[in-house]
Amino acid sequence: MKIIPNKGVTAPQGFKAAGVNCGIKASGKKDLALVFSEVPAKTTAFFTTNRVAAAPVLVSKTQLQKSKNFSAVVINSGNANACTGPGGISNALEMINLTAAQLSLDSHTVLVASTGIIGTPLPLEKIEKGIILAAKNLSVGGDNEAAQAIMTTDSFSKEMAVEFEVEGKKIRLGAMAKGAGMIAPHLAPHATMIAVFTTDAYLSSLFLEKALEDAIGNSFNCISVDGDTSTNDTVFLLANGLAKNEESALFFEKFQEALNFVSLNLAKMILKDGEGATKLITYKIQGAKNSTGAQMAVKTVANSLLVKTAFFGEELNWGRLMAALGCSGAEIDPGKVDIFLNEHQIVKNGEGIKEANIQELKEVLARKELEVIINLNQGDAAATFYGCDLSYEYVKINSGMLS
Amino acid sequence: MKIIPNKGVTAPQGFKAAGVNCGIKASGKKDLALVFSEVPAKTTAFFTTNRVAAAPVLVSKTQLQKSKNFSAVVINSGNANACTGPGGISNALEMINLTAAQLSLDSHTVLVASTGIIGTPLPLEKIEKGIILAAKNLSVGGDNEAAQAIMTTDSFSKEMAVEFEVEGKKIRLGAMAKGAGMIAPHLAPHATMIAVFTTDAYLSSLFLEKALEDAIGNSFNCISVDGDTSTNDTVFLLANGLAKNEESALFFEKFQEALNFVSLNLAKMILKDGEGATKLITYKIQGAKNSTGAQMAVKTVANSLLVKTAFFGEELNWGRLMAALGCSGAEIDPGKVDIFLNEHQIVKNGEGIKEANIQELKEVLARKELEVIINLNQGDAAATFYGCDLSYEYVKINSGMLS
Repeated sequence: MKIIPNKGVTAPQGFKAAGVNCGIKASGKKDLALVFSEVPAKTTAFFTTNRVAAAPVLVSKTQLQKSKNFSAVVINSGNANACTGPGGISNALEMINLTAAQLSLDSHTVLVASTGIIGTPLPLEKIEKGIILAAKNLSVGGDNEAAQAIMTTDSFSKEMAVEFEVEGKKIRLGAMAKGAGMIAPHLAPHATMIAVFTTDAYLSSLFLEKALEDAIGNSFNCISVDGDTSTNDTVFLLANGLAKNEESALFFEKFQEALNFVSLNLAKMILKDGEGATKLITYKIQGAKNSTGAQMAVKTVANSLLVKTAFFGEELNWGRLMAALGCSGAEIDPGKVDIFLNEHQIVKNGEGIKEANIQELKEVLARKELEVIINLNQGDAAATFYGCDLSYEYVKINSGMLS
Repeated sequence: MKIIPNKGVTAPQGFKAAGVNCGIKASGKKDLALVFSEVPAKTTAFFTTNRVAAAPVLVSKTQLQKSKNFSAVVINSGNANACTGPGGISNALEMINLTAAQLSLDSHTVLVASTGIIGTPLPLEKIEKGIILAAKNLSVGGDNEAAQAIMTTDSFSKEMAVEFEVEGKKIRLGAMAKGAGMIAPHLAPHATMIAVFTTDAYLSSLFLEKALEDAIGNSFNCISVDGDTSTNDTVFLLANGLAKNEESALFFEKFQEALNFVSLNLAKMILKDGEGATKLITYKIQGAKNSTGAQMAVKTVANSLLVKTAFFGEELNWGRLMAALGCSGAEIDPGKVDIFLNEHQIVKNGEGIKEANIQELKEVLARKELEVIINLNQGDAAATFYGCDLSYEYVKINSGMLS
């Protein structure tokens, strides 16, 4: 597997994309993206588990109940079309109809997603202009602009493409994603987290869904910026089959590996660009009694405000890690807990290590990427989660004090 | 029932208290408190549910298994005696023995609590000096100093006393408490939250426990500063019986009313003094399908970082309230949700109210105390929770950037 530099959703054969400004964002920044496959693509998707699901989530879910083959995805940023009542549903449907009309498609083959402010009706006239323009602009070189057009509070666009060969066939997988707040994806991720994966691989529907579920379970569902789950999280995977591969066991293995690699990298990009985040922290729980306990422990520690602020301050406050473990609901014997910061042990049998080299630890705490390994020494279960710190900037962004 | 101004744990007959500095806090501020009842008092207690419980929590629990009658409580601040291993246990026992020796008590009649930094061994020599001094200083006028001596990041001391009459007997209830971070008490509260209640009422052990459980359930267990549950949370209630009342139904009713009143007021003081908090926000969920759903909804909304930062910024971001409801796990039909900010309706049937008077709402958002009432219109269950906002100051305090 090799990375194709500077490419995203149009890296696989037969995909085109575009990103335009249609005036939803007053700044003039791009706010409407279109992804198009020349031949219908088998498609699977995961959506937010938030019960206050946005209109485009409800509409795309219904689309996927009616068909498994899609040719286009239309996404706007700047407006989430959430908490917008029946009018929101008809606006999401209208986005689909306008896109289908411009691309001469059946409206059953178009999916929709939105991200941005909650509770404001979609400006449909602007969106119509945007769809007309984006349809005209569709090109193989349009991936970067599409990735820009789905950004909200993101400070950089997030895309990736890889290529691998299996049994003489070259297969490509491309993707774009966005963060950067309301990020604590659950099954279908959040802030509004949106991601579109494209591939020219041939995959049966069943494996497609299983592959995406597995990839999400180990990437987007393992990150949290702020513990808040969005109303709009959406992940699409479109596979148009143009690579004409066989569905061999080797192919499945390599495809899953590529999908997991790209998913995890995009998830980490979302975290690095998390609102106000200055550090990416990988938390690994080992030796838990069972998998549920490992998950509870790792998420409670990663989401603890006291842990997050301590890392922002570059303070070695291992007591906060212990306290978070203790209230996670996982079975903990405090006297058995060992904690490592990168390669340095900082807690042994539940107590701080006095002989720890404070100067070396200060240097580790100052890094942009850290790893915290917690061994509960209670069993064999493990879990990994990716988090970030909590800074002044997070408060600034989300209190509306950022002008 | 009337409030006795400027009084705390020594308001009831037969109680004395003291608060001294013994050098745990380098600042010279008071760091050791003693509460003493002239006659043994029936005692009940609730402790943190954090599995990483501090040594004084484990030791006081054992004390309460051996006896129901206690004469003294010793509390230090500045050091939590948590994650301190077997040495921590023997230090907590030694605090009890030293106190018993100074007051000529059986060591089975003394309770202990600690609050402060986690993971540092207790400076026992300093504590010994403090206990000797505090025992000498014990007086009916020592309540205010005791309340000061249990403070950590608190900016003001928290105490209250009330008096009521029932069937010709005058009964007094006094209390002191401390916050102000790691506050999300669960059964037994946290940051380390510590509270001591004293009363001269006569109460059987069974009712004493039930009364305190009820009071905590509607006060300390309904507040959250940061969602982190401490290792040291402790609530003691000592009843020495000197009021010589009958245990009548009327007495029970009036006592419970007084205990609930004082508990809720202390809990609100802890919140108002929450680390970096600028606003106290009361959240009321109504019309939930069941009590569990009401609890999940109210806690998720109150603990949402996006909700907390929006209130800090005095922004009317009702979409964040909706998003938090949606991911709370409670059964929600978004189209049925009504939300009120104080007396102003801001969401009707899940959508924002356009005709809301923005100027009036701005005035409400600028207040120091707000009420958010959310009607899910799904059933009859309700829940109330008290939260605060999240400010720069919280990040400053907890990142160690406060010099």
